[in-house]
Amino acid sequence: MTFLKILKTVQKKNDSLLCIGLDTDIAKIPVLLRKHKNPQLEFNKRIIEATKDLVCAYKLNLAFYEAAGKSCYETIHKTLDAIPNNIITIADGKRGDIGNTAEQYAKIIFDDWKFDAATVNPYMGYDSIEPFIKSGKHCAFLLVLTSNAGSKDFQYLDVKGRPLYEHVIAKAAKWNKLKNIGLVIGATHPNELKRIRTMVPDMPLLIPGIGTQKGDIESTIRYGCDKNGELAIINISRAIIYASSDKNFSEKAREVALNYRNQFNQYREKYFM
Amino acid sequence: MTFLKILKTVQKKNDSLLCIGLDTDIAKIPVLLRKHKNPQLEFNKRIIEATKDLVCAYKLNLAFYEAAGKSCYETIHKTLDAIPNNIITIADGKRGDIGNTAEQYAKIIFDDWKFDAATVNPYMGYDSIEPFIKSGKHCAFLLVLTSNAGSKDFQYLDVKGRPLYEHVIAKAAKWNKLKNIGLVIGATHPNELKRIRTMVPDMPLLIPGIGTQKGDIESTIRYGCDKNGELAIINISRAIIYASSDKNFSEKAREVALNYRNQFNQYREKYFM
Repeated sequence: MTFLKILKTVQKKNDSLLCIGLDTDIAKIPVLLRKHKNPQLEFNKRIIEATKDLVCAYKLNLAFYEAAGKSCYETIHKTLDAIPNNIITIADGKRGDIGNTAEQYAKIIFDDWKFDAATVNPYMGYDSIEPFIKSGKHCAFLLVLTSNAGSKDFQYLDVKGRPLYEHVIAKAAKWNKLKNIGLVIGATHPNELKRIRTMVPDMPLLIPGIGTQKGDIESTIRYGCDKNGELAIINISRAIIYASSDKNFSEKAREVALNYRNQFNQYREKYFM
Repeated sequence: MTFLKILKTVQKKNDSLLCIGLDTDIAKIPVLLRKHKNPQLEFNKRIIEATKDLVCAYKLNLAFYEAAGKSCYETIHKTLDAIPNNIITIADGKRGDIGNTAEQYAKIIFDDWKFDAATVNPYMGYDSIEPFIKSGKHCAFLLVLTSNAGSKDFQYLDVKGRPLYEHVIAKAAKWNKLKNIGLVIGATHPNELKRIRTMVPDMPLLIPGIGTQKGDIESTIRYGCDKNGELAIINISRAIIYASSDKNFSEKAREVALNYRNQFNQYREKYFM
């Protein structure tokens, strides 16, 4: 199955656009897990077990696993083992390097860890992206308009009357021969999201910025989805996984995740049914 | 000592602008090393032992260590242990993410592995860079104009009459309050390098693209150095470390490294003495 087909299937099956971001910071997970041999992995397994019927994707922020040191490789492997096969897995590493180096990143992410998709930084151009898309089986989400304050430093620079990020989108559309490129668009930019969806009606959009970063849910659903109310993957990390630090943390995470999923679906009904 | 002071000291002591890039690919290192428990580490130790009096820096391309899987964390640690303290170490990972995530990358690179410097992708703006520069002790080399073919896709886009990469330089100069930002400029762009050096007379420039990528040595020295013939860090990876795959590979690497160092120094004499 193609990436798009897998995505649509799981969004339908779990009736969900929600992606949970496993930005698992050892300093923030419940103290009661610290006695475990691998607290990060234990935390992830419990969050996944509690939420796997509510999501279309899990996104692993690679920085938090690298920062944990030597457990990194195994924690990522075993976390992916705990995720049901039908759910999309995204390696959020924002890699980008010359061709022969990008090959190495793609190799560990797709061939070894077996993620379905990866986030990629476009600044170095086509040869830095090509290793992530060439097989056709995996999806590369290009950073376009990010949710952070620094997105204003370069992404909006005016290039021939249009912001830089629109030039990234135009190239992405051109490079999308195998229909396996997606875009990262922060929910903190609703007006831009509206325009971007008209530029790429059929591309999957990975949308961070709801939750801790306070993006608006209604406009994210209304403008981020395709015409069928699909193909938006809305990521929430901290607001769900750190909803509680008590022993009921996974139940609390489920509760918050369910609430987000349902809110998303209310707006899908409002705009797409 | 500040990063700039350490750099100038080692460039003087070893009379060298050469940085050797440890892009250590398990598939490319001599077959005779495969019997070792950790062939990547063994290779690095031998290359370092053979060349450490000839360089100002070693640059580790993180992708090649990640791709090796679970040995990554330890190989990087022990490779750094094998590098004399006075030589600059650069983590070439080209990271770039929102502030709380960039903190995690800076933590493993600087606090745990103890690199002196890191390459950083500027696309996400200031908050993605700040964790790499805030202590003042470490240097962040921002990607500006890279050596690869894809550098033409976005880096030259015209923004108010100047290429995008010059806007990155202008921001970098503004953010450089602690004098610990450097720039990555590919040797494959000599005319641009000339102009860039006039824009940032006192910044260290990390210059890849000599060797396998065929950048021109004379113009790299002439335009990449500051007015004293210093502050250019010229990286060569494959052309040195894979100079031979026989058992004398480290001697051969030394020979090639020495040759590059001496060529660099001939042009330094020509233009700066």
